[in-house]
Amino acid sequence: MNVELYMNTLGQKARDASRLVARADTGVKNKALLAMVAALDSSRATLVEANKKDLAHGRENGLDAAMLDRLELNDSTIDGMIEGLRQVVALPDPVGGITDMNYRPSGIQVGKMRVPLGVIGIIYESRPNVTVEAASLCLKSGNATILRGGSEAIHSNQAIAACIRVGLKAAGLPAEAVQVVETTDREAVGQLITMPEFIDVIVPRGGKGLIERISRDAKVPVIKHLDGICHVYIDEQADRAKAVNIALNAKTHRYGTCNTMETLLIHIAIAADILGDLVERYQAAGVELRGCARTCALVPAMINATEDDWSTEYLAPVLSIKIVDDIDAAMSHINRYGSHHTDAIVTENYTLSRRFLREVDSSSVIVNASTRFADGFEYGLGAEIGISTDKIHARGPVGLEGLTSQKYVVLGDGHTRK
Amino acid sequence: MNVELYMNTLGQKARDASRLVARADTGVKNKALLAMVAALDSSRATLVEANKKDLAHGRENGLDAAMLDRLELNDSTIDGMIEGLRQVVALPDPVGGITDMNYRPSGIQVGKMRVPLGVIGIIYESRPNVTVEAASLCLKSGNATILRGGSEAIHSNQAIAACIRVGLKAAGLPAEAVQVVETTDREAVGQLITMPEFIDVIVPRGGKGLIERISRDAKVPVIKHLDGICHVYIDEQADRAKAVNIALNAKTHRYGTCNTMETLLIHIAIAADILGDLVERYQAAGVELRGCARTCALVPAMINATEDDWSTEYLAPVLSIKIVDDIDAAMSHINRYGSHHTDAIVTENYTLSRRFLREVDSSSVIVNASTRFADGFEYGLGAEIGISTDKIHARGPVGLEGLTSQKYVVLGDGHTRK
Repeated sequence: MNVELYMNTLGQKARDASRLVARADTGVKNKALLAMVAALDSSRATLVEANKKDLAHGRENGLDAAMLDRLELNDSTIDGMIEGLRQVVALPDPVGGITDMNYRPSGIQVGKMRVPLGVIGIIYESRPNVTVEAASLCLKSGNATILRGGSEAIHSNQAIAACIRVGLKAAGLPAEAVQVVETTDREAVGQLITMPEFIDVIVPRGGKGLIERISRDAKVPVIKHLDGICHVYIDEQADRAKAVNIALNAKTHRYGTCNTMETLLIHIAIAADILGDLVERYQAAGVELRGCARTCALVPAMINATEDDWSTEYLAPVLSIKIVDDIDAAMSHINRYGSHHTDAIVTENYTLSRRFLREVDSSSVIVNASTRFADGFEYGLGAEIGISTDKIHARGPVGLEGLTSQKYVVLGDGHTRK
Repeated sequence: MNVELYMNTLGQKARDASRLVARADTGVKNKALLAMVAALDSSRATLVEANKKDLAHGRENGLDAAMLDRLELNDSTIDGMIEGLRQVVALPDPVGGITDMNYRPSGIQVGKMRVPLGVIGIIYESRPNVTVEAASLCLKSGNATILRGGSEAIHSNQAIAACIRVGLKAAGLPAEAVQVVETTDREAVGQLITMPEFIDVIVPRGGKGLIERISRDAKVPVIKHLDGICHVYIDEQADRAKAVNIALNAKTHRYGTCNTMETLLIHIAIAADILGDLVERYQAAGVELRGCARTCALVPAMINATEDDWSTEYLAPVLSIKIVDDIDAAMSHINRYGSHHTDAIVTENYTLSRRFLREVDSSSVIVNASTRFADGFEYGLGAEIGISTDKIHARGPVGLEGLTSQKYVVLGDGHTRK
């Protein structure tokens, strides 16, 4: 197979289809999404069958239990995909919305209309449900999509793609509105990210290595976050109970998510008082603790944190703890070692909360709540295609609006420039 | 001079300064801008002196009259810079503005706070007044800037830079908040656009060749437009008088601007009626006309347009004219040959105006007004750093808001994820 030619053909078809998707009515897009629901529901046996091939290959190739778990399709994961589609149907359609329409001194009216980006390339790893999730968000936001899943999920993804095509057809939308790459050749990714004439933006989902590689080589914009090194800073004037609850929740609610706290910063004046209780509860939860010198002095038998610990995303029951002298030391630690993802302060002090919100340079800044809230659903976006730690275009959880742009619309009545 | 080292040093200093500029109050930024006004006003002789060197060099190097004209600083151009600064002082400060702050079902409040991008690199050609304009917009939007002007304006730009530094100092802002590159070595541009660790976005202003080169080689996002191939489509149901006025204004108001019409599209049913009058008035204005076959059949002695004409930005008193069968033909011509900059329809038909607004994929779409309105001042942005025809981040005229991003702010009261 000539991968370059194949990907170029996919790209051209996506570009053509994108014009039709961009102007599709909300009702038509919802009809397609609901027809996908019906197709997935009636294809359960086929999906599970295809998935079994992937699982068997996976076992042969020595995938670990966690990866096999993420790869598996069963009634419950198919229910999850269906529920996800129904949620996207329920979301308001951002496309065509006109805002800020005002008269100007010249007499013209100027406003902004929300428009799709065009063609979105999604690159992801093992979980096949991402195929449905990404396709539905791109479709609802009026974009065409090219999806490149992991080679370990190729059969599952193709079976899902067939259901997506059934849905598109039922609504009279072109099949090329959502295309799932059929080759597992790695060169396909290289092509996908270097076709600015066909692809408007790439959204990679996966490990840091994958995303770094894509960002480095891409010739189109990439919406991404590399990692989530999130902090909670417990200020001297923190409410003790809130601080303990938030610090526990931010670490132990889920270990493998990007908005999980990796480093806890504690004001020196409250450290002795709060650490005893916290350490006990972390240890009860099975969290390994690594402390700075001052922390280790207060809590003997704690592991000494190394310089590397401050910039490590553990994604595991491990937490580094540092005692700081004041909010300035906390914020400079966060801005230096953090990944600009999500950082929280626990304080009852009005002025310090205001400073933290303004001065911490992260995509989400939080006062008196767990970092685990940094999420499209919790923020009310309805769903998220990913989280961006960049500042260009979208920042933070990216929902339907992040998959669109705005154009200016001008209404006149024969107006000319003076 | 080691250009790489020099540029890296500039970059590091800009990154450090950007944190201080980001948190500067509106009053402090305005104080700096007004101190720049005073410094420019009291340095008129020095500025004109420095500029004379550039003009002399320019003449030696055979710059044409138009370029020398753009390069010249005199009392009137200095007045213009001062007036521009005063306008930026008057603009509202976008930084820190919080919008969409709402309670979520979990009890947390979520909103978005507008934040600076960080460090902006500006690359531009001969006009030294861009130095003040770009610096002031970046400063007001809380960003640090590195400015790289044309080598032909180096003495003028350094003299202006000195006034900018006086202004920064008077307000207690770091001198590195605005840095003007002191070397004319071309390698400096190559460095500037490949330092993602120090530069967050590049805004190039200049010819298409410069911008294409920068976009191709940059390792950071670029806010740009390549060219402005703008269209006016006169529909069958256009008001004749509005159509003639708009078509004339869009072409003849100014020839060298990116929002000037380059191709006029006319519905076949109105062409014979309107072309006689229009051609006469274009010819009176000295505009050379190049028509499609049907246009030439109606207006004998008109030059035949070639395929190249449809994708040429003349920036001159030249206009290509094409007769089309309907709005679909017009829109497909625009989407194919246009540059997604600014396109207008003249029609009294409600349904067609609505279709044109939705389906034309340009950064500005206009009904019954001249394309010349596509401009930051006319749109009420107060000023513009440039016009973007991209869809990622900013689109259309880019003002202060386009030089910022948004972060999520979350307010809780001890909230944890369930």
